[in-house]
Amino acid sequence: MSARGFASDNSATIHPDVLAAIARANVGHAFGYGHDDYTPRVEAMFREHFGEQAKAFFVFNGSAANVLSLRAACRPWQAVICTETAHMNVDECGAPEALGGVKLLQVPAEHGKLTHELVQSRITRIGDEHAVQPRVVSLTQCTELGTIYSLRETRKIADLAHANGMVVHMDGARLGNAAAALDLPLRALSTDVGVDILSFGGTKNGLLGAEAVVILNPELAHGFDFLRKQTLQLASKMRFLAAQFEALLTDDLWLRCARQANAMALRLADHVRRVKRVEITRPVETNVVFVRIDPKATAALQQQFAFYVWDEHAGEVRWMCSWDTTVEDVEAFADAVREAVG
Amino acid sequence: MSARGFASDNSATIHPDVLAAIARANVGHAFGYGHDDYTPRVEAMFREHFGEQAKAFFVFNGSAANVLSLRAACRPWQAVICTETAHMNVDECGAPEALGGVKLLQVPAEHGKLTHELVQSRITRIGDEHAVQPRVVSLTQCTELGTIYSLRETRKIADLAHANGMVVHMDGARLGNAAAALDLPLRALSTDVGVDILSFGGTKNGLLGAEAVVILNPELAHGFDFLRKQTLQLASKMRFLAAQFEALLTDDLWLRCARQANAMALRLADHVRRVKRVEITRPVETNVVFVRIDPKATAALQQQFAFYVWDEHAGEVRWMCSWDTTVEDVEAFADAVREAVG
Amino acid sequence: MSARGFASDNSATIHPDVLAAIARANVGHAFGYGHDDYTPRVEAMFREHFGEQAKAFFVFNGSAANVLSLRAACRPWQAVICTETAHMNVDECGAPEALGGVKLLQVPAEHGKLTHELVQSRITRIGDEHAVQPRVVSLTQCTELGTIYSLRETRKIADLAHANGMVVHMDGARLGNAAAALDLPLRALSTDVGVDILSFGGTKNGLLGAEAVVILNPELAHGFDFLRKQTLQLASKMRFLAAQFEALLTDDLWLRCARQANAMALRLADHVRRVKRVEITRPVETNVVFVRIDPKATAALQQQFAFYVWDEHAGEVRWMCSWDTTVEDVEAFADAVREAVG
Amino acid sequence: MSARGFASDNSATIHPDVLAAIARANVGHAFGYGHDDYTPRVEAMFREHFGEQAKAFFVFNGSAANVLSLRAACRPWQAVICTETAHMNVDECGAPEALGGVKLLQVPAEHGKLTHELVQSRITRIGDEHAVQPRVVSLTQCTELGTIYSLRETRKIADLAHANGMVVHMDGARLGNAAAALDLPLRALSTDVGVDILSFGGTKNGLLGAEAVVILNPELAHGFDFLRKQTLQLASKMRFLAAQFEALLTDDLWLRCARQANAMALRLADHVRRVKRVEITRPVETNVVFVRIDPKATAALQQQFAFYVWDEHAGEVRWMCSWDTTVEDVEAFADAVREAVG
Repeated sequence: MSARGFASDNSATIHPDVLAAIARANVGHAFGYGHDDYTPRVEAMFREHFGEQAKAFFVFNGSAANVLSLRAACRPWQAVICTETAHMNVDECGAPEALGGVKLLQVPAEHGKLTHELVQSRITRIGDEHAVQPRVVSLTQCTELGTIYSLRETRKIADLAHANGMVVHMDGARLGNAAAALDLPLRALSTDVGVDILSFGGTKNGLLGAEAVVILNPELAHGFDFLRKQTLQLASKMRFLAAQFEALLTDDLWLRCARQANAMALRLADHVRRVKRVEITRPVETNVVFVRIDPKATAALQQQFAFYVWDEHAGEVRWMCSWDTTVEDVEAFADAVREAVG
Repeated sequence: MSARGFASDNSATIHPDVLAAIARANVGHAFGYGHDDYTPRVEAMFREHFGEQAKAFFVFNGSAANVLSLRAACRPWQAVICTETAHMNVDECGAPEALGGVKLLQVPAEHGKLTHELVQSRITRIGDEHAVQPRVVSLTQCTELGTIYSLRETRKIADLAHANGMVVHMDGARLGNAAAALDLPLRALSTDVGVDILSFGGTKNGLLGAEAVVILNPELAHGFDFLRKQTLQLASKMRFLAAQFEALLTDDLWLRCARQANAMALRLADHVRRVKRVEITRPVETNVVFVRIDPKATAALQQQFAFYVWDEHAGEVRWMCSWDTTVEDVEAFADAVREAVG
Repeated sequence: MSARGFASDNSATIHPDVLAAIARANVGHAFGYGHDDYTPRVEAMFREHFGEQAKAFFVFNGSAANVLSLRAACRPWQAVICTETAHMNVDECGAPEALGGVKLLQVPAEHGKLTHELVQSRITRIGDEHAVQPRVVSLTQCTELGTIYSLRETRKIADLAHANGMVVHMDGARLGNAAAALDLPLRALSTDVGVDILSFGGTKNGLLGAEAVVILNPELAHGFDFLRKQTLQLASKMRFLAAQFEALLTDDLWLRCARQANAMALRLADHVRRVKRVEITRPVETNVVFVRIDPKATAALQQQFAFYVWDEHAGEVRWMCSWDTTVEDVEAFADAVREAVG
Repeated sequence: MSARGFASDNSATIHPDVLAAIARANVGHAFGYGHDDYTPRVEAMFREHFGEQAKAFFVFNGSAANVLSLRAACRPWQAVICTETAHMNVDECGAPEALGGVKLLQVPAEHGKLTHELVQSRITRIGDEHAVQPRVVSLTQCTELGTIYSLRETRKIADLAHANGMVVHMDGARLGNAAAALDLPLRALSTDVGVDILSFGGTKNGLLGAEAVVILNPELAHGFDFLRKQTLQLASKMRFLAAQFEALLTDDLWLRCARQANAMALRLADHVRRVKRVEITRPVETNVVFVRIDPKATAALQQQFAFYVWDEHAGEVRWMCSWDTTVEDVEAFADAVREAVG
């Protein structure tokens, strides 16, 4: 693969602004581990985006941001309510359990979204020493299936959590895509609707490789710097992580990248919606299109374009756009889809 | 700080060849997680350097490489013999214990070096269920104090380990500096003297941020890909880690960088050796000079140059050179030292 | 409470033979930790019951036996398939995850029983480094709902597990009740149908407090003595755990106790089956009766008799018999039930 | 072995009062897990002994009491200062690290005793995210070498700990022996000199098998019931653990047992002090005598009497008395010692 495909937004390139920012930061010596000039400057940018109390900690990848968030929130007997399809549940090779010792209380959820009722159903056996105690609700925004929580939905879940002494973690590996889709600032989807701790994604939105844990509820910040180091996420040459985020948060680069990815997915969906024998299986709300399609067509298409089969049994595949997907890419792909399904 | 100081080799810049390699890799899409064209190519370069059986796994930082090595080698009741000054013992915020559940059996060691006798002293209570069982000897090459194990010393420790059913981990965060100092290829210091698993450093030798676990004993490779993912070290845009190592291993960049850092430390040592009231406290064998010096002089020097106090009580400080340290840097610093101690 | 109720078989007394055995062992000194005369003798009794290769390790309670079994079988990236209602999933306060770092892959299951199909459904993503790898199937015999796996059912699951390189753990906290119900020896339900490692219960069947991990597949025995000590399950005065099991395995005490408990539950079921407004909700196969009953009747009954509400929403309660439940106890309770439901 | 030897106080029998208490509790049903009549009654006895704020939690063994104490006190980045010879450091098979994820900061200590200065030496790098942060000082009273902390010594260490935001754990597996030797109540050695959490031993002082974690600082009690269950220490038939402690705390049984053991050790020490070629190596302050003796004499003695070699290289052996050691036992052993050394 070197042409642009539809496999994942982490197959994409580094945005040129980001690479330029790294190059600009590559002058002279800088103390390691964030004791440089860049890091505090970019931490301040996070406060502008997420509120004055927000504390940003840069880390290497999204699984790490998630596991760190859970470690910050949970004592050993406390557990996390999430969907069955949550990244932390199915795509982190058991890191929450193995590194954090945290049990995940999973619920089956339509299109990857928790609801107030689903969360409520797992808040049980409070005070019963035989059972782990729910402490965190973790929701993914946008979800692993590309769907979006409305502000009202998030707020309702957050209120329920807080009323039960729990906190809300948001896996925002693609928060930018959700904010772009809703045409709202980042804090509207997180700080302002009760999120306590956030995994904020960068790698899927044009960075080389950097994510941030953003602590919005200061009670969760105690000892977090130690946790980050212990969880193997303290970069020695931190300035180069900070520089990436500086680029991302400058001139709304994050928004421009996310909008492009979303727009390309919508364009693709518009095309395929009109194609017989291709059934869109999930609401197309951000940068991804899930469809059901004949496995033979899948096989034919994969000769030319990279993408993943999501559910082999159901014949469901995932077509994901990224910041660098172009109109030409989409047109070419849509043509190929039409041809493949005959 | 933005002038070059002597704080650490991770205060240094990215080598331009490395940044260029990243930029070159930034074309088109590539599957994530190493399923790209770069990664297997660079893995092959590691086999050239470390032998046909060597399996390289790229990770984000040195603590991670160490913890992963221990996780690969140890069942829960097994322990690691290391020095009291080992990075894994004092500078990883308890990650080996907290993430790996591994107990470290520490020995006080002169100038950071294990010996056959010291290792032997901790191989005790074999088969006694009340005691953890030694499984790994971990030695740092070059050590945290800049000293080097001779081939014979490493071999003797490895033979002892193997005779006791144990394996040898080498923390090679600065293996390049040791190899440059001994004027030997990397495999001579590792594969050829019985090392089973290696943390191979890149970040301190000119990379943006990348290290590798190199498994030299295939018995330790079982499940390692899962361990890497679970330990939060699987980069999604892996091609950019691979590209860094490709640059490092091309045209002996690693060697040129390490030689420069070593040469600068020797030059600095030559200067200060002739300065009264500055006592070199450790053999200067690689890229670092430890000295005892009047705290007032330290304070004065730190106004101009970045470096760390190593042992406040002893008045010992650490002056570390890096790949980008220049002759002019050293001369200016040596002048300042002379002036500071009066 | 001091009259006999129907709360749990661990509300019951110690069988007099067991207490007598403890008293008999209380003579003179004995080396701790199993290096006494009693322990090897009782280990030999386990070999008689479970086969020559069986290795028994006495521990303090059932959760510990389960967690130890999983720790023995799993490397950190490996996972356990079990039912949603499995004791290890809902009643061990997250110990498998927190102490063992093990993820549980749960399936909803009717009346607490795994099936070949349910297990098959969780054997997925083999070799995919993002996902934990199934390693253990854990089934409870008899189940938490009192139901029994037939030999054929267990064997089919075991064959599936073994065909996939997995092992079978049996939570046999009440294995005696299952064996008594099937009128088969203990090994017929475990060793002979492919179980690899067994939690064998004693506390619920007349002991003061002792369980055993019985390793049937010698490959899982490596390092188990260390694991037991590290998991805080090595009794110093081991002779008194051994003595309890000696009593249990002498003159079929385990069988007599289990038969009595089972018979009392069947008797109770016979009574209530004929009572209107009491609906038996689970097959009554061992020593427990689950019924749906009016919450008011429950409240009235609980004034006199101890028992637990199983599912408040469904109005389902659990009536459990134990080795010391008498015919008179059952008759009195059945009378009270009739009266309570009017 | 079945005659009484000098191997360990856990080789001893159950005191008859304790066995009688178990038998007395063996009447009728009792809810499991401490929801019985015995447990709250005995918890109240602990409050009488340790103060009104004391919360006692019964567990199975001493390693568990220690690990639970550390888990209650430490977040993941926090560490424990203890001696190199501490039971938790050398005799718990790495459980603090493997189950608690806790790093032990060990100090070499004369005769097993921490000092204010030794503790001070490990309170370093506070706030440095690369280093674990000291949170607990753990001292053993009496120590593993039979020595005793004076009230003043404990208080001085506790004051230092508290002044640094740390807490004090006391491993009191043999606290009774220390209290008996000092002729002071239990609380004088613990509550009153600043101990925050205590492992209180019973098994070595006449019980069948029971220990207690006694939380003296209520801040450490949060979630402890969950921790006990998760750490596999919640007994289902709890009444029989409670009954043991009830016996121990009734009519000063603990004190009578401890005094007897201590007196027998002092008697033995008096004998051997007058024997040439037997050198007492540690202050004899409680129920144990350490001596240096010719290995041939050791071998001869071990034909008749059970005891352990403590340090093979030094020819040091341990002779431990227990609650059931008699004057005749000591006389016979002293005679044998005299004969063995010729």
